[in-house]
Amino acid sequence: MSKPKVFEKPTGVKDYLPEAAAALRGIEFKVLQCMERWGYREIITPTLEYYDTVGVASSTEDKKLFKLLDRNGTTLVMRSDMTAPIARVVSSLLREHPFPLRLSYHANVFRAIEAEAGRDAEFFQTGVELVGDDSSESDAEVIALAVACLQAASVKEFKIALGHVGFLNGLFQEMLEGRPDAQRALKDCLMSRDYVGYRETIKALGLPAEVQKKLEGVLRLRGGQEICRLAQQVTHDPVAERAIAHLCEIWDVLKAYHVSEHVLIDLTMIGDFSYYTGMTFEGYAADLGFPVCSGGRYDNLLSQFGRPAPATGFALKTNRILEVVGKSASSATARRVLVAYTAEHREAALKEALALRSREGLMVETKLLDHKDGLKDKQPLDDGAFRVQGTVYQDVFEFVK
Amino acid sequence: MSKPKVFEKPTGVKDYLPEAAAALRGIEFKVLQCMERWGYREIITPTLEYYDTVGVASSTEDKKLFKLLDRNGTTLVMRSDMTAPIARVVSSLLREHPFPLRLSYHANVFRAIEAEAGRDAEFFQTGVELVGDDSSESDAEVIALAVACLQAASVKEFKIALGHVGFLNGLFQEMLEGRPDAQRALKDCLMSRDYVGYRETIKALGLPAEVQKKLEGVLRLRGGQEICRLAQQVTHDPVAERAIAHLCEIWDVLKAYHVSEHVLIDLTMIGDFSYYTGMTFEGYAADLGFPVCSGGRYDNLLSQFGRPAPATGFALKTNRILEVVGKSASSATARRVLVAYTAEHREAALKEALALRSREGLMVETKLLDHKDGLKDKQPLDDGAFRVQGTVYQDVFEFVK
Repeated sequence: MSKPKVFEKPTGVKDYLPEAAAALRGIEFKVLQCMERWGYREIITPTLEYYDTVGVASSTEDKKLFKLLDRNGTTLVMRSDMTAPIARVVSSLLREHPFPLRLSYHANVFRAIEAEAGRDAEFFQTGVELVGDDSSESDAEVIALAVACLQAASVKEFKIALGHVGFLNGLFQEMLEGRPDAQRALKDCLMSRDYVGYRETIKALGLPAEVQKKLEGVLRLRGGQEICRLAQQVTHDPVAERAIAHLCEIWDVLKAYHVSEHVLIDLTMIGDFSYYTGMTFEGYAADLGFPVCSGGRYDNLLSQFGRPAPATGFALKTNRILEVVGKSASSATARRVLVAYTAEHREAALKEALALRSREGLMVETKLLDHKDGLKDKQPLDDGAFRVQGTVYQDVFEFVK
Repeated sequence: MSKPKVFEKPTGVKDYLPEAAAALRGIEFKVLQCMERWGYREIITPTLEYYDTVGVASSTEDKKLFKLLDRNGTTLVMRSDMTAPIARVVSSLLREHPFPLRLSYHANVFRAIEAEAGRDAEFFQTGVELVGDDSSESDAEVIALAVACLQAASVKEFKIALGHVGFLNGLFQEMLEGRPDAQRALKDCLMSRDYVGYRETIKALGLPAEVQKKLEGVLRLRGGQEICRLAQQVTHDPVAERAIAHLCEIWDVLKAYHVSEHVLIDLTMIGDFSYYTGMTFEGYAADLGFPVCSGGRYDNLLSQFGRPAPATGFALKTNRILEVVGKSASSATARRVLVAYTAEHREAALKEALALRSREGLMVETKLLDHKDGLKDKQPLDDGAFRVQGTVYQDVFEFVK
């Protein structure tokens, strides 16, 4: 193990230089503002949490948690999501606050890097939790809000895939009763979107032809509202039927929000997170292989913190959105202005700089000159700007005479 | 060691509920905007850094660093300040960028809690670094910017204490040559502002009366510009004399910025950070015993990262500023509005909610009702607002008939 070089940073973490930082901030600002307009107020929680509480409640695999010990020998984790910390706050500091509670956040979260690398160890999430409402209306609200947030973040083309954990749970229970390993194997295939593996696993199970056909048919249960009708024909398991009915209700509300054209029903989808108990969804932007947002209903998590309550929410993957929209996300760039002066004109020059700084959209640098000849190495550019010692300024003021 | 309770969080870390979070965000926004107007562009660096690079270069005592191991067994630290990470970026990704470089940041930083407790383990800093300029003009620029930022953050009454590490270094070298332990002991007293201990330590050293008098006189070297003249009478050590001359120059520039009324010269001040090489300063708000900002010149740090360059900067202690200005820091609070509807009026109600959300300064919640009788438990309040199930709304719209 060699010592890291001075310029290196740990694997899986990033520096955001000014242009990227401004773009990331632009997304953060617009999305949080959108969330606030829908009634979601931001909270901030600490980076470090107890392993035994928030760490265990989070849906992150144990080996992917960054762990450390505090002075007392208690294990801490760097938060791996914001849903579990918010459940802690809702159950403690906000215990007296009436439901429904609408909360938003923007936070960096951490995952100990996997061996196969390439994954981020630290990334940003901007999200909401709607706590204390078990209706399909509230599920639709957070999906409609996710659409509004993606639009606010200038993501032009995207689709929301909507599923429900109850459908596959019910269907597999009906078709593969008493075979939990087979159920798990099929779910793993769907989780990793390995549809070839899914079909092969089914074949290897030696099932009656009709059951085999129905299980294979699951892969076609992706599309518009008609999927609900098709799915009803596949199963009569009560859990699966309730899931389908719930999705139908959500769809109706999404139509009222006029956002259903962004949504596809995908009954093959399995939420990332073990704590999901109802509908789950993922947002996909054009040309990007991984989701830019994910969310779902988690009705059992809060009870782990002592305040049982239904809840639903989502997180935008903010730095993936940055990859999609690029630097266009940053608000209008400030005009860069240089005020150069000799010592004898300092006061007048600094006064002018102060006046310029009070105007909207200017970024004003000052520079002391040691001679009265004005700026050296000042080249006029075609657009009226100037290049001074390698930096472009939209305007230059010289106080030298 | 008992297991933490589910509602607990680690010692020294905080949750910020919506009002406090909004106020903290308000300070962050206004201060970063002020910094940008002075030409400082924000960068974002990772929370985790290598111990052997940034960890060692930071001025935080080793035992106060949060450390953990990555998969390869290399020691990582949670950043304890932003100056060392920015030095890393300036020397790597920004290596080709011409000087001067003006960078800003807003970040959470970490200190493993001390036994005596009460100290924050995680807190926010908003600051700047001005890299590549060794002039007193640039020292004065960052001090004037610190004043502007404190004003932008609505800190009403504050003073900046300005010192220089060269003064005490030179003076003690002159008066206590060959007695490094005595020099260290006196500096420790000044660092902890233990002026009684300082006088007692001097007495115990058995010095000639004149030297003793001069060393005791250091405690009086706090005040306005006249302190420079007084200090010149105390010492003829060249390092101390250069420090005084440098402070005089800074003072002249601060007068041109019209901010010298906020500044006191304090030659007893010793910067917190071991990497300071020149002027140092601290900002104190009325009624608060600890500084709300601190900064200074650090001309040797960059060379540790392979790009030797002078640098100066400061950090505002953002959550301490929150304590000073309270919730007044948050921008105008949005008006909270409720749109309640029955299922049959859903589409019209959601359309109205969308229209309201497009207006400035409204926070619009929606609520499905299961009956046509309108909201239950709706009480009109004196100011035209309504209380609905424990929450106050400035306006309520009902779509029920």
